[in-house]
Parts: sequence; C-alpha cells; structure tokens
Amino acid sequence: METIVIGIDIGGTNTEFGIVTEKGNIHNRRKIRTCDYPDIQDFVDELASQIKQMLKDFEASCSFIGIGIGAPNGNIFTGAIEFAPNLNWKGTVPLVDLLKAHFDTNIFLTNDANAAAIGEKIYGGAKNMSDFILITLGTGLGSGFYANGKLIYGHDGFAGELGHTIYDPTGRQCGCGKLGCLETYVSAPGIVRTLREALQTSDMTSSLRNINIDDISSKDIFLAAQNGDVIALEAFDYTAKILGMKLSDAVAITSPEAIFLFGGLANAGDLLLLPIKKYMEEYLLPVFRGKVKLLQSELPENSAAILGAAALVFENLKS
Amino acid sequence: METIVIGIDIGGTNTEFGIVTEKGNIHNRRKIRTCDYPDIQDFVDELASQIKQMLKDFEASCSFIGIGIGAPNGNIFTGAIEFAPNLNWKGTVPLVDLLKAHFDTNIFLTNDANAAAIGEKIYGGAKNMSDFILITLGTGLGSGFYANGKLIYGHDGFAGELGHTIYDPTGRQCGCGKLGCLETYVSAPGIVRTLREALQTSDMTSSLRNINIDDISSKDIFLAAQNGDVIALEAFDYTAKILGMKLSDAVAITSPEAIFLFGGLANAGDLLLLPIKKYMEEYLLPVFRGKVKLLQSELPENSAAILGAAALVFENLKS
Repeated sequence: METIVIGIDIGGTNTEFGIVTEKGNIHNRRKIRTCDYPDIQDFVDELASQIKQMLKDFEASCSFIGIGIGAPNGNIFTGAIEFAPNLNWKGTVPLVDLLKAHFDTNIFLTNDANAAAIGEKIYGGAKNMSDFILITLGTGLGSGFYANGKLIYGHDGFAGELGHTIYDPTGRQCGCGKLGCLETYVSAPGIVRTLREALQTSDMTSSLRNINIDDISSKDIFLAAQNGDVIALEAFDYTAKILGMKLSDAVAITSPEAIFLFGGLANAGDLLLLPIKKYMEEYLLPVFRGKVKLLQSELPENSAAILGAAALVFENLKS
Repeated sequence: METIVIGIDIGGTNTEFGIVTEKGNIHNRRKIRTCDYPDIQDFVDELASQIKQMLKDFEASCSFIGIGIGAPNGNIFTGAIEFAPNLNWKGTVPLVDLLKAHFDTNIFLTNDANAAAIGEKIYGGAKNMSDFILITLGTGLGSGFYANGKLIYGHDGFAGELGHTIYDPTGRQCGCGKLGCLETYVSAPGIVRTLREALQTSDMTSSLRNINIDDISSKDIFLAAQNGDVIALEAFDYTAKILGMKLSDAVAITSPEAIFLFGGLANAGDLLLLPIKKYMEEYLLPVFRGKVKLLQSELPENSAAILGAAALVFENLKS
C-alpha cells in the first residue's frame, strides 16, 4: 500500500497543494487564491474541504499519514504562522490547530526555506548529505541549514535567517527594520536596486537604459547579462561577491558538504554560480577551500514548494 | 563502581591531564611541557606512561571507559591534529592512532573550543540546553555550536570557526591569511591592537600611556577600564560592538537559547558582557530580540579544558 501525504505551499497570492507519494510524485494538484480569504477560518474550511475531496480517490488504495505545510514565518514548534508581513492574516495564526479540527492526522508547519531544505534532503540533491545549506533566492533570501542529518530549527524555531545577517551595518534599509541585511543586496529586488544605482551613477551604455528604470526586473538583468551587457554583468558580480562572502561565513560556522541555490535568481545558473563560487573560495578559511560544493537545487521549480511541504511529514515521522 | 575517563588538554606550552569522574571531579592532575617534545612519538610515550601510572590507583575501584583530548586543530573524524600553527609537530599528527598503541579503549580528539562547548553541556551552564553557542576569547576567538542537542562538527569536522568569519573584508591581517577576520578584532591581541591604535591617534589622557606601548596587555586594558579610563572603555566598546554584530549573525543562523563566553577576556565580566548584549540586541532580527541569554561560562577556568576533553568521551559514548 503506497504511503501518501498532503503537501501545502502557502504564498501571499496562491496556495498550492497536492497528494504526494514517498517517491515524490504529485497527484491531484490544486490551487486556491490565498488573498481571496481575508478570514483565516474561511481559508481553512475551503482548504480542508478540497483536501477531503482529493483524498477520496486514494483512501482505499493508499495509506494517508499526514499533512505538511510550508508558509512564510511558519513555526514548527508552535504550529502557527507568526507575524507574516506578506499574508492577509495578522498576528499569530494557529494554522495546525485549525486544520486539526478537520483532520485526525499528523500536521506539520514550517517556513518556506526550511521546507525547501527538507525537500532537497528527501527528494533532491541532498539525499545522502548530513550537512548542507539551502539558499532560496527570490523576493528575499531564505535559508535552511542541515547539521548532523537534522534541520536546525534552533531554540525557538526561527533558525536559518541568513538573509538577515548583516552585510553592511550602515547599508540599505531592510524590511525587517535593520540596515544592511544580506537580502537587501542578494535577492531579486536587491540586484534590481544595484542595477538602478549603477545606471544612475555611470555613463556606460546598456541595453537596460531602453527600459523604464522603475520597470526593470531581475529577469531583464539576467537577459542583458547573457548578452554581455557590462552594467548587468557588473551587477551580477557585485551580488555574487556579497553572497560569496556571507556564504564563507556560513561555511565557517556549519562546514557543509554542499550549498544548494534555489529559486528565481538561482536560475541564472553559471552566470551567478561561477562568480559566487570564485568569491566564496577567496573568502573561505584555507581549511575549507576546494571542499564545499556549490550546486543548483535538483527540485523542479514549479513543484519544489509542495514537495518540500510534503517532505516535512516524512522527515518528522522518520525521527 | 564509578566511571572515569582521562581528560587531556594539549596547548602550545603545556599539556595538562587528569582522571575525571562523570560528576566532573578531577583526580591526580598532572602537567608535562608540550614544547619539550619536538618528536611526537616521545610525547605520546611519556604521556601514555604517566597516564598508566595514574590509572593504577583507580583501576580496581573504577570503570575506566576512555580518553578525551582537546588540542588546537584536533579533528574528531580523523583523530588527527591537522596543521596546528602553534604546536611543534607539523602537518598531520595521527594522535588517536598513536595513543591506541598504548591503550585499548575509546579515544576521542577535537579542538579546544569544541571541547569547551561539550564541557559546558556536560558539566556547565548548558546542561539542559539543546541549542547554544560557546565562544572562547583568548589569543584567538574559538567557538562551538550545539543544535538539536548535538555539537556541529560539519562535513569535515572543522565547523565552528566563528573567529574566521569576516568583519571587514579590507581590514586587519589575520594569521589565517585572510583580511578582517573577527578574531583580529575580538581576542586578547585584537583589543590590544585597538587600544594601541587609539593611543596613537588620540591625544586623550590615559593611564595606559604610562606603560610601554609594546608591553600593554589585555589585562592592563581591563584594569584601566575598571578605573574608568576612557580610552580603555572605548576599546571595550569597540570590541563589544563588533562581537555583538557577529553574534547577531550567528543567532540568525542557529537561533540558540544562550551564548556562553569563556576564557581570559570573558573574565572582564559585565564590563564586556553588558555592551556586547546591548549591541547584539541592536543588530538582532526583531524575532530574536530579548530571547537569547548571554552568559559567562560556568566552568572553572583552570580546569575547564580538562573537563571539556573528558566530557568528549561521555558525550560520544552516550549517542
């Protein structure tokens, strides 16, 4: 009898979910609009109702063992989404408890980056690794750290906030209230800001000058860099240098076998990976040089979040 | 029958060792001069011979279960001291194998800071903690990280090098070859350098001007600061600000319940602890503020290294 779980990925716009097998196959994938449910109870009722429908076809032939959820600011210890700035629901949302009213099963919740790291461990390139770091590069910089074969949640469940380590204590304003956090430089908005500053302070020609400066996206920068645009390449280099330095710090602390990059910006591939690797090696303590693999995530981008959420169940029931 | 182990602390000048009980009592403490044995085989033979003598009185009444060693650049995975700059023995020294020729027992080796962290967990203030950081402040800055109840050794055994994370990539030259490593600022020589620079660039009166500038020690600075010497207090503040910032980075990654400070500089007590705490809170991501305890190590300074080495045996045989 095949074992199945429900994987749920909650984002600011959409919530995607599906039935996931132990091998990582996704069945009956669905989507509801998170922002259509300003009341959390309505959201949970709709989600539960759809999940119950989905499970009907499988209950007879499969063993359903739990629900895993990845959500911004999701806390594994409390089962609550705590003060997520990008969601409609304010304060502390006891999501696991609310879902338990509908399902008598194991339910686990963590944040997106932790879920992605667990997904990489169960279904991706980190299957045989005990010590690794996963970095998500998107609208922010998220991270999940594995040591001794376990995800580091820390004392309060909020470990893995590499994006809010400080690159420059007098630097860019971060959404968290601090100055100079890594993610204000290394993220999609971060590289866009770097590029805009470069356009404004240099006279160099650039294909990006043909786009309204407020409309430039990280994808535009990637395409320009691929075509050899010097300003775009410099923005990549600047971003890679900062990330390389902060990854060298992370390596000094946890000494991982590999670092995986995941998400929008990571799709720039070698254009970003090669300079990050170069700078990381430069900043590494000699004893770590040449040892740490820098890899792209092996999870398929459009299903990674659901797989990561599902993996949370398998990972937690295993130990 | 009481369980005992041998704890050995290898330093550049002296090697101290003793019989340690599970409760942390040390018996038959001895010392040999590390630097008197340029040949590692002579060192091991002498050490083994003394340990055998020590054990004679205890063998009948106690259960001897192993030997733990703390040494600079000691690697738990290989059992070797690897390229320790402050020891006479060059290259890779397979210390555990050499000792196994003399003892048919469990022998474990790790570096000093890891041993101190394990000592704090087994005998000190971290007894009931699963997630904590221990920082040793002396001629360098060492660190040991616990997560999920286990010390983080990392993929190659060299995790926990917070002292070589980068504070200023264009800053002070570090012994490791890089620029601006944390320990070039936050360590006994680091604060001395800060103080000397302050004396040279300011006209302010200071009791420290009565000491030859090349002879000023971190203890002199501590005593001057206690007496309200402004330049000494500023050096403490500068050091605390840098450590506070880098500790906030470490918290963002592993989210510890507490951070313990150990070693010479840490004895400055509140003079250092209070400003470190203030700056750390300032640089912390809001979700961590007010949650992380900053504490002095509870291990007695003169026996902490032997206790830490001994704890290594109890910790490793437990799991």
